[in-house]
Amino acid sequence: MQAKTNRQVLLAKRPQGTPQPSDFEVVDAEMPSPDEGEMLIQTLYLSVDPGMRSMMEEGKSHTAAFELGKPLTGRSVGRVVASKLNGFAEGDYVYERLGWQHYSLSDGSQAQKVDPDVAPLSTYLGIVGVPGFCGYFGILDIARPQAGETVVVSGAAGAVGMAAGQIAKRQGCRVVGTAGSPEKVDYLRDELSFDAVINYKTAQNLAAALSDACPDGIDVYFDNVGGEITQAALSLINYHARIVVCGQTSQYNAASTASGNIAPQLLIKRSAMMKGFVVYDYADRNGEAIEHLGQWIKDGTLHYRENIVDGLENAPQAFIDLFAGKSFGKQLVRLSSG
Amino acid sequence: MQAKTNRQVLLAKRPQGTPQPSDFEVVDAEMPSPDEGEMLIQTLYLSVDPGMRSMMEEGKSHTAAFELGKPLTGRSVGRVVASKLNGFAEGDYVYERLGWQHYSLSDGSQAQKVDPDVAPLSTYLGIVGVPGFCGYFGILDIARPQAGETVVVSGAAGAVGMAAGQIAKRQGCRVVGTAGSPEKVDYLRDELSFDAVINYKTAQNLAAALSDACPDGIDVYFDNVGGEITQAALSLINYHARIVVCGQTSQYNAASTASGNIAPQLLIKRSAMMKGFVVYDYADRNGEAIEHLGQWIKDGTLHYRENIVDGLENAPQAFIDLFAGKSFGKQLVRLSSG
Repeated sequence: MQAKTNRQVLLAKRPQGTPQPSDFEVVDAEMPSPDEGEMLIQTLYLSVDPGMRSMMEEGKSHTAAFELGKPLTGRSVGRVVASKLNGFAEGDYVYERLGWQHYSLSDGSQAQKVDPDVAPLSTYLGIVGVPGFCGYFGILDIARPQAGETVVVSGAAGAVGMAAGQIAKRQGCRVVGTAGSPEKVDYLRDELSFDAVINYKTAQNLAAALSDACPDGIDVYFDNVGGEITQAALSLINYHARIVVCGQTSQYNAASTASGNIAPQLLIKRSAMMKGFVVYDYADRNGEAIEHLGQWIKDGTLHYRENIVDGLENAPQAFIDLFAGKSFGKQLVRLSSG
Repeated sequence: MQAKTNRQVLLAKRPQGTPQPSDFEVVDAEMPSPDEGEMLIQTLYLSVDPGMRSMMEEGKSHTAAFELGKPLTGRSVGRVVASKLNGFAEGDYVYERLGWQHYSLSDGSQAQKVDPDVAPLSTYLGIVGVPGFCGYFGILDIARPQAGETVVVSGAAGAVGMAAGQIAKRQGCRVVGTAGSPEKVDYLRDELSFDAVINYKTAQNLAAALSDACPDGIDVYFDNVGGEITQAALSLINYHARIVVCGQTSQYNAASTASGNIAPQLLIKRSAMMKGFVVYDYADRNGEAIEHLGQWIKDGTLHYRENIVDGLENAPQAFIDLFAGKSFGKQLVRLSSG
C-alpha cells in the first residue's frame, strides 16, 4: 500500500558556515510511478554524511553540487516496490544514491542489490559500505602500515574512523584516536581496544597529549577532521610518514580554511606522503572489501555502531548535529522498518 | 705545494629572512694535516644549494643544522692531496660533503670516488649528482608520468628543474615550465624543447597563463618553488594528480610560510597525492641514476647548464643570489681548476 504523496527534504538555501534548519525545506510532492525501464524504490535508510556539506557549495568537486529547491541526495538502502525493469523485482533490496524522499524512481544503472543475510541492511551504509570502504582502502591500500607502527586516526569515533582504527589494529599497529566526548573515548579504548584515545575537547594541550600518546612518533595519520588536530599530528610525523586525507570535517563549515592548511616543506623534511582519496577511486574493488568486512564482523574482530534517527523530517537536524560532534557512530535516518 | 693557511667561510649569524653578506665570515684557519686513517682533500668545486637555507635554521630536519662560527658544509668535489687511508690515494677525485674551505680532512666513510672520464668533475654536483637525482627519482619513481600527460615544473631553469623537465620529455609528456627571466624562458623552450614556458615575473595573471599552457589540466606538478606558483598549479590539477614536493625556494626565507600552504581538502577533491622527498631516500639507487644520466648526456638527450663563480670568497654572494633568481643552471663555486 503506497502513500499518495511523496515527502521530500529539499535544499532551500546554500548554507553559510554551519548549516541551519532554515537551509532545508520539507514538502509533499506527487507520488511518482515507474515507466517501462524503471523501478520504484521505497527508501528504508538514508545515510547522513559530513561530505554532503561540500556538495551544498557550488563548484567543481568529485560529485556535482546539490541543486537548490531539489531534494538532497545521499547513499540509501531501499526496497523495490514496483518494477518495470529487467533484473529487479518487487521485494529486492538495493543500495543506491537516492533522493531524501520516501519514494524514488530508478533506471537501475546505479543500483546494487544487497543481501540482508550477508549483513544487516543498515550496514551497507556504514561498516560494509562507503565509510567502511574508506577505512579499508585508506589503511590497506594507501597507508599500508607495518606491524608495530603508530597510526593516529582523527575523528576516530565516526564511522570511517572506527573502521580505519580497527583495521589498523588488525595489522598489528599501535592505534591512537581522537574523539570529542568521554563516552566516545571510553568506547574506543574499552570496546575497540585502541591503545590510546584523546578527548580533543578537553585536552589542555593537544600537541602534548598526542606526543605523550605517541612516544615513537606517528607513522600513519588517517585524517577525517583537519584543522588543529592535523597540525598537532603533523608536528609528530616520522620519516616516510603517510598521511591519508579522508575527510576534513572541521573545515567544511569554515569560511577560511587557512587554519587547516599545511606547509609542503614539512613533507620534504620527513619525506612524507599525503594522499587524498574518495571511495569511488576503488569502485572496482568494492566486492573484495564487502567480503573482508563481512567476514571480520562475523568473526567478531570488527565492531560497528549506528546512530539511527527515525523519520525523514528529522534528517536535516541529524545532518546539522554531525558538525556539533553529537553523533556517535554511523548517522542514519530510518524512513521505514523495511 | 700546499698553502700555509686554510681559508674558510663561516656561518656568522643565522639569517633573518633573506641571507645577507654579514651572515657570513671569511677567515684563515690553520692548515690541517691528516692522521693515520685520514686523508686531506683539496676542494675543487662547491655546490651552492637553496636547500642550505633551511640548515641555517635551528631545528629538526633531515640533516643537522649548521653550527654558528663553523664553516658551512656542502656537496663538493675535491682531489686527494695526501692520504693515510687505505683505498684512497693522492690524485684520486672524490665527491663528499666538505666544509666551505680549501682543505678538509676526511676519514673516507662518506667519500665516493668519481671518474672524470665518465662525466666532467663539476657535473657530479649537478646533472650527474644530487640535482639530477632529484629530477630522476622525483619524475621516474614518484610522479611516474604516462606519455601524453601534462607535467608542470616550477623553477624549471634550476638544476633540478632542468633535469626533471627533460626527463619528463623523455617519457613523452607535455612539459610546461616556469622561470624568471626571458633568457631562461628562451633557453627552456628553444634548447630543452619544453612545450611551454611561463615567465612568472612578467605574467599578468599566473593562474591564467598556466591554464592557457595546460589545456588538459595538470597531471604532475614538480615543485621546486612553492608559494604563488604552487597555488596556481594546484588550482589546475587533474584527478589522480601527483605533486612532487622537491623544493620550496620561495618559502625558505619567508618569515611566515602561510602563503605557500595548501588545503588538504584539495587532495580529496582530486584524489591527488603529494609526496615530499630528499635524494638521500634513494641513496641505494644512485648507481642506476648515474648510469642513465651519463648515458643520456652522451647521447645528447639530456642537456645541462652550469653557472660557475671563481673563488671561495664569492661563495656567500653566490648563495644569496640564488634567492634573487639570478642564477641560471647549477650554481657552483670553483676553488681550483683541479
